[in-house]
Amino acid sequence: MSGKLHIGINDVLKAKSRIRQFVHATPVFTSSTFDQRYGRRFYFKAENLQKTGSFKARGALNAVTALLESNRSIPGVVTHSSGNHGQALAWAAQIRGLKCAVVAPNTSPTVKLDAIRGYGADVVICEPTPISRQETCDRVANDKGYHFVPPYDDLDVIAGQGTIAVEFLEQIPQLDAILVPTSGGGMVAGIAVAAKSIKPDIRVFIVEPNGKDVERSLVAGERLWPNPPRVLDTIADGIRLQQLGHVTWPIIQEVVDKQVFTVNNEQIIDGMKFAFERMKLVVEAASGAGVAAAMSERMHNMDASICHVGVILCGGNTDIEHLPWYT
Amino acid sequence: MSGKLHIGINDVLKAKSRIRQFVHATPVFTSSTFDQRYGRRFYFKAENLQKTGSFKARGALNAVTALLESNRSIPGVVTHSSGNHGQALAWAAQIRGLKCAVVAPNTSPTVKLDAIRGYGADVVICEPTPISRQETCDRVANDKGYHFVPPYDDLDVIAGQGTIAVEFLEQIPQLDAILVPTSGGGMVAGIAVAAKSIKPDIRVFIVEPNGKDVERSLVAGERLWPNPPRVLDTIADGIRLQQLGHVTWPIIQEVVDKQVFTVNNEQIIDGMKFAFERMKLVVEAASGAGVAAAMSERMHNMDASICHVGVILCGGNTDIEHLPWYT
Repeated sequence: MSGKLHIGINDVLKAKSRIRQFVHATPVFTSSTFDQRYGRRFYFKAENLQKTGSFKARGALNAVTALLESNRSIPGVVTHSSGNHGQALAWAAQIRGLKCAVVAPNTSPTVKLDAIRGYGADVVICEPTPISRQETCDRVANDKGYHFVPPYDDLDVIAGQGTIAVEFLEQIPQLDAILVPTSGGGMVAGIAVAAKSIKPDIRVFIVEPNGKDVERSLVAGERLWPNPPRVLDTIADGIRLQQLGHVTWPIIQEVVDKQVFTVNNEQIIDGMKFAFERMKLVVEAASGAGVAAAMSERMHNMDASICHVGVILCGGNTDIEHLPWYT
Repeated sequence: MSGKLHIGINDVLKAKSRIRQFVHATPVFTSSTFDQRYGRRFYFKAENLQKTGSFKARGALNAVTALLESNRSIPGVVTHSSGNHGQALAWAAQIRGLKCAVVAPNTSPTVKLDAIRGYGADVVICEPTPISRQETCDRVANDKGYHFVPPYDDLDVIAGQGTIAVEFLEQIPQLDAILVPTSGGGMVAGIAVAAKSIKPDIRVFIVEPNGKDVERSLVAGERLWPNPPRVLDTIADGIRLQQLGHVTWPIIQEVVDKQVFTVNNEQIIDGMKFAFERMKLVVEAASGAGVAAAMSERMHNMDASICHVGVILCGGNTDIEHLPWYT
């Protein structure tokens, strides 16, 4: 797999050894109520309890560390994200003693920008357009010599996210499948590469919001999304990209299941509420999407041989002053 | 200590061996942000992640198990509580194969009664008065031969709650103090008995809502509360009894610190929000009181020798449809 895809289990294991000192081996939660209601054994991997509040800490720290290994004189890193990747990169840079700039649109909530600044990064404000974002990011990179660390389309980022699967299968070796909330696809690509290498029969499924329409592209084997890339109308702001990335796409085509779990806002809220009420975990809507997939008709109709199902609670960065069931 | 107080570390260790197979060794959370802001090292014991959503599972299961050890032919157990103890006793009885009845006022939220029924217990509705509650409880006990398991005024319940301290000191041996949200006093009594036995210099502090006024009674060495017993006007419904119990009182007088942390609703909400936002944990208001005590002026002014402070996040059973910062 490694040769064909430019990424393999060894990259993930190397990532694990790079980051393990700084990230949490997040706990796995179960609920007998949930299992009885939905008829299988479910295991919820609490990446909401990860450093910076999401799994993104893993990929960002691996990417920053790999950059430094290849070039000790890098002055800093830059990315565009007002979300979890921005926080994660700021945190990772701080750990490795690098400067960091995060480009964010002038529409970003102050609380998110404060979180990024809290990790010592500079926030560079841009217009809320893809062009302004890219131009601003390029300018910072050129002016300061910072290296761009993409949120998902990067093999080191993908390998870092893959450490979730290694850890999860150490904790729950009997997993038959893993449900992965997906935006650009860095996490699902990394998890699938690692999980399939450790346990070839395991199935790794994408969970998507309505309108992403990944299954059609996966089954066709070609990118059928309209251009330019757009963002979806979903409450799950962590997974609102319609298109998978261009680095993640060939990996996903190779190792991720063609069946996709699609959930709507109402289902996502139900999933979030279950996590809050029964597992006592604060999760963001993208995590709720994972829970919703576990609760879904499609899961209900899955083959009975899929007994043990992992669900990635990918993050917990939600605005508790505006929880979606209050609006 | 054991002879004088009718309870000692051996009772707690016996409780631990009785219940350990069924309860979680709950994780301990830390926050460098919190520590930097408040100038000590804080350790949050997540009993909100305990079975049934609160520490009460420990005491209830120990009490039920001890009852069965002394009399195999007990047909069932009964208590009055629409809250955490009711759920915990229902759960404990189910584990031990005993019947259970929980007496609850007709004003109880349906969701709480459903949770109790979910563990297989019968709910017996009474009027929302102390007299009706006691009479109904006595009637069930007499009619069915069920044993009454009090929420806090019971040595086996207290010993069960004490297992928190044994576990906490295994996890964080360097603890100098523990902050314990307190209602009738079962948890703080059990924790203090165990903690002081393991580490005589440790300090165990009561955290109370405004109006409980425990410190005055503790310092005076006598019960100065007005009778009949009343409930406090606080959002922390898990700790709203004004008076400590009559079984817990002499223990608390002996082993709990005379300094008490008093918090108001606003502080409790701030504490809850910190747990939600930064630790990604759903906690009930009584847990928020513990966090608030850690944030308080009184803690700020404590002696610098108190470096490592434990905080009990006692439960997570809060109505997520009515979080207090939305009202």
